[in-house]
Amino acid sequence: MLSGKNYTGMKNKPTILISNDDGIGAEGIKALAKEIKKFANVIVAAPHTQQSAVGHSITMSSPIRVKEVLMFRDFYGYAVEGTPADSVKLAVHTLLKDRKIDLLISGINQGANTAINTIYSGTVSAATEGTILGVPSIAVSLTSYTYTDFGNAAKFAARIAKVILHKGLPKGTLLNVNVPAVKKIKGVKITKQGKSSWDDTYDIRIDPGNRKYYWLTGSMHKIDKTMDYDVKAVDEGFISVTPIHYDLTDYNMYEEMQNWKI
Amino acid sequence: MLSGKNYTGMKNKPTILISNDDGIGAEGIKALAKEIKKFANVIVAAPHTQQSAVGHSITMSSPIRVKEVLMFRDFYGYAVEGTPADSVKLAVHTLLKDRKIDLLISGINQGANTAINTIYSGTVSAATEGTILGVPSIAVSLTSYTYTDFGNAAKFAARIAKVILHKGLPKGTLLNVNVPAVKKIKGVKITKQGKSSWDDTYDIRIDPGNRKYYWLTGSMHKIDKTMDYDVKAVDEGFISVTPIHYDLTDYNMYEEMQNWKI
Repeated sequence: MLSGKNYTGMKNKPTILISNDDGIGAEGIKALAKEIKKFANVIVAAPHTQQSAVGHSITMSSPIRVKEVLMFRDFYGYAVEGTPADSVKLAVHTLLKDRKIDLLISGINQGANTAINTIYSGTVSAATEGTILGVPSIAVSLTSYTYTDFGNAAKFAARIAKVILHKGLPKGTLLNVNVPAVKKIKGVKITKQGKSSWDDTYDIRIDPGNRKYYWLTGSMHKIDKTMDYDVKAVDEGFISVTPIHYDLTDYNMYEEMQNWKI
Repeated sequence: MLSGKNYTGMKNKPTILISNDDGIGAEGIKALAKEIKKFANVIVAAPHTQQSAVGHSITMSSPIRVKEVLMFRDFYGYAVEGTPADSVKLAVHTLLKDRKIDLLISGINQGANTAINTIYSGTVSAATEGTILGVPSIAVSLTSYTYTDFGNAAKFAARIAKVILHKGLPKGTLLNVNVPAVKKIKGVKITKQGKSSWDDTYDIRIDPGNRKYYWLTGSMHKIDKTMDYDVKAVDEGFISVTPIHYDLTDYNMYEEMQNWKI
């Protein structure tokens, strides 16, 4: 379906699939694709609309449609009418089934995917789906909704992509990268998922028809005080790289529960 | 909002919040509520419609509405126009903010939430959200879409609920319970999340307007051969109890990556 267009036929170059959760039109994809195209064949398959905080949703009970869209007047991408995980699953299984995908990068997301956000994140979910399907995958986020200079994040994504193309990743493991929204990056920290979570609540409002509705609001309650956690590393101006996996087993509790009488 | 109705005012009884991903009208809630009411005050807050495979979605960019609905001609429940995680978040934060919730049970789901399904599961997501909010939580699934005898699952949910009300759960840990769809249960196994995943693909179909669409299909490729994994335990007729958490950090890789030069 995509053969014969200008990003194919480049022998010896790796093929990198880009996805995201902000939708195929997002600036973060453009900045990332521009940087990655310097050394790889780029294919984009991403949700057609913004899909933040969808977690690891997949669409089963309804069909999915796909449109090929011209991106940045340069190449075609797949706009998938589904979630980030749908985009990746459909691309790897079906749309690109005759092509070898060497790496998947999900991003560049706007907004931090650190600490508890990791489990709500559509950006991480796309990379998780890639990992499940056997494609080495990374999620890349810029930790601000308002700062729009993707330069540092795109450059680091390219750098770590090259490292992974060379070293690979263990089966079942992906990298969750968060780049601080600052001009001058202090360095890179390998981190753990922070323990911080949301102090959230719901605004209770009344609509014009006098009916009540609820709207989520809140802020991150930061309890991670050391640089070995993603939250603190980015707050201090470092790029945070967290290796994560999708084996949710709590092994300590698994051992302890063997003695439970149930 | 719920005070003064027939499920309140019972002193010394624990209060148990029930949610699910199959929607507030699901048979699984009815069977569970009936059993739990024998020893606890039951409150139900669940999505108003079926929400399977939504993963850990939350609704941020749109408001949420809630209806109080009479359930089984017996008591009122909250039908939340959102995801399973929304239901729990809204219930604990706002709808029930003046009540102490002693335990959350998500279920009884129809369909196994073992192995890779754990990360797609709305049922598990509701229990994860409870855990994040500090409420001891369990997810309960019956491993069949067609077998509708919830008796064993409801009885076991009540049994393990009593154990947890007594013992508690570690901060950040929840239990993912899968009950085999058989008349005679062989016993209970404490298990790990299986490594099995889906051999999935997409049916490519043509709509009446001659446009292509894609529909997910597939089956679980079972690679877990021993009873210490959830998949195998339920296949052998045992109830599987898997302690899980939402710290996704891959600690082995975290150690290894300290030596990466990036």
